[in-house]
Amino acid sequence: MTGDREQAVFEAGIKLGALYHQWVGTPISRASAASVESAIEKAVILQPCVEEITVRLDRNLMTENRFGYSELSGMMFDAEIITRVGFTYCRAHLAPEKGYPLMKIVECHEVQNNPHN
Amino acid sequence: MTGDREQAVFEAGIKLGALYHQWVGTPISRASAASVESAIEKAVILQPCVEEITVRLDRNLMTENRFGYSELSGMMFDAEIITRVGFTYCRAHLAPEKGYPLMKIVECHEVQNNPHN
Amino acid sequence: MTGDREQAVFEAGIKLGALYHQWVGTPISRASAASVESAIEKAVILQPCVEEITVRLDRNLMTENRFGYSELSGMMFDAEIITRVGFTYCRAHLAPEKGYPLMKIVECHEVQNNPHN
Amino acid sequence: MTGDREQAVFEAGIKLGALYHQWVGTPISRASAASVESAIEKAVILQPCVEEITVRLDRNLMTENRFGYSELSGMMFDAEIITRVGFTYCRAHLAPEKGYPLMKIVECHEVQNNPHN
Repeated sequence: MTGDREQAVFEAGIKLGALYHQWVGTPISRASAASVESAIEKAVILQPCVEEITVRLDRNLMTENRFGYSELSGMMFDAEIITRVGFTYCRAHLAPEKGYPLMKIVECHEVQNNPHN
Repeated sequence: MTGDREQAVFEAGIKLGALYHQWVGTPISRASAASVESAIEKAVILQPCVEEITVRLDRNLMTENRFGYSELSGMMFDAEIITRVGFTYCRAHLAPEKGYPLMKIVECHEVQNNPHN
Repeated sequence: MTGDREQAVFEAGIKLGALYHQWVGTPISRASAASVESAIEKAVILQPCVEEITVRLDRNLMTENRFGYSELSGMMFDAEIITRVGFTYCRAHLAPEKGYPLMKIVECHEVQNNPHN
Repeated sequence: MTGDREQAVFEAGIKLGALYHQWVGTPISRASAASVESAIEKAVILQPCVEEITVRLDRNLMTENRFGYSELSGMMFDAEIITRVGFTYCRAHLAPEKGYPLMKIVECHEVQNNPHN
């Protein structure tokens, strides 16, 4: 049987995998980056079990091609998501690590469900 | 040989094909639609030869799934693009027509290049 | 702290979220479906921690548009993935459930690590 | 008014823009490249006005990340498409040129419609 903890972790993985592959390849520049960050956040927060999502895209990697723009790549992502299932929260992260856009679980924790307090 | 007119038409086709396949599948709702429209416009305008781009997404098709959101589908798009190559402009359109998200050329025209005026 | 079980679950979620958003929108027909299934499987198996992946796309939903083809939608997916981290396996599934393409954990289990046998 | 020539060019642009943004980001390796090439070709040929499509992905660019695979990028594409509208054919190309994945019209030509031969 799987519990809330596994479910919260699973949901976090789904959302990070989804956002990566939905948005990689988007034409982007330093001027448009904030708009894309906001659109990604607003899309992810709609999905089940998402409590918080923050997306920052690394402007330093947005080097201009000969037509003056760049393309959203995996290494540009710094995204943090918090999912919740029942009383369990999972915080996970997507960010470059040793040349790879790594997704990892930061922590999981349960909050007290104490209706008498 | 291909001239400016063909090139402007080609560029319009590229951008409509690209935007369709980049964003179809994005989680969306009536509340987030404006943000996605804006992000698409800001991405497309970066690309070569694009003079104008307007994207409207049909809120009426954004029916909620059991988790309260929808997914961007081709039939939701109403997009108009104007490309320019040299002195030739091409206006093209993506919108539903008989149950299909149709891309079509609306018109092409050349502007006078009269350096003496 | 998160252990192998959470990590295996997380990896399964990432892969299902990724494959969904990478391929939704692909032009498809009954004749080409096997080729797309195979390409998805060959792409997913490359990713870290994936032991097995099976993708079946529902031909019954591939109704022809006026140009004679269809578009890969979330409801067409029936995908099963097995991930492994250390000695823990996670089996997860993507398939339609009550009108939604649901991703869920099927089961997790640990295999014995008995070096004396 | 636009004629068959513009229409054939427009259709070629649509398909190249579409395939690029549909497939960029796919996990890929030298071993799986042929499968992805085939799936792309089988998807594109379904679309209206496509007569021929050939996709070759540059294995030399498929350098392995720390998990032993690569990701399909725009610079890997060498794709040639032939579209037809009426009696007019358009051949277009997507390939790297000076560090950019350039789409261009190679040529357009009309074939004789001579029913007496």
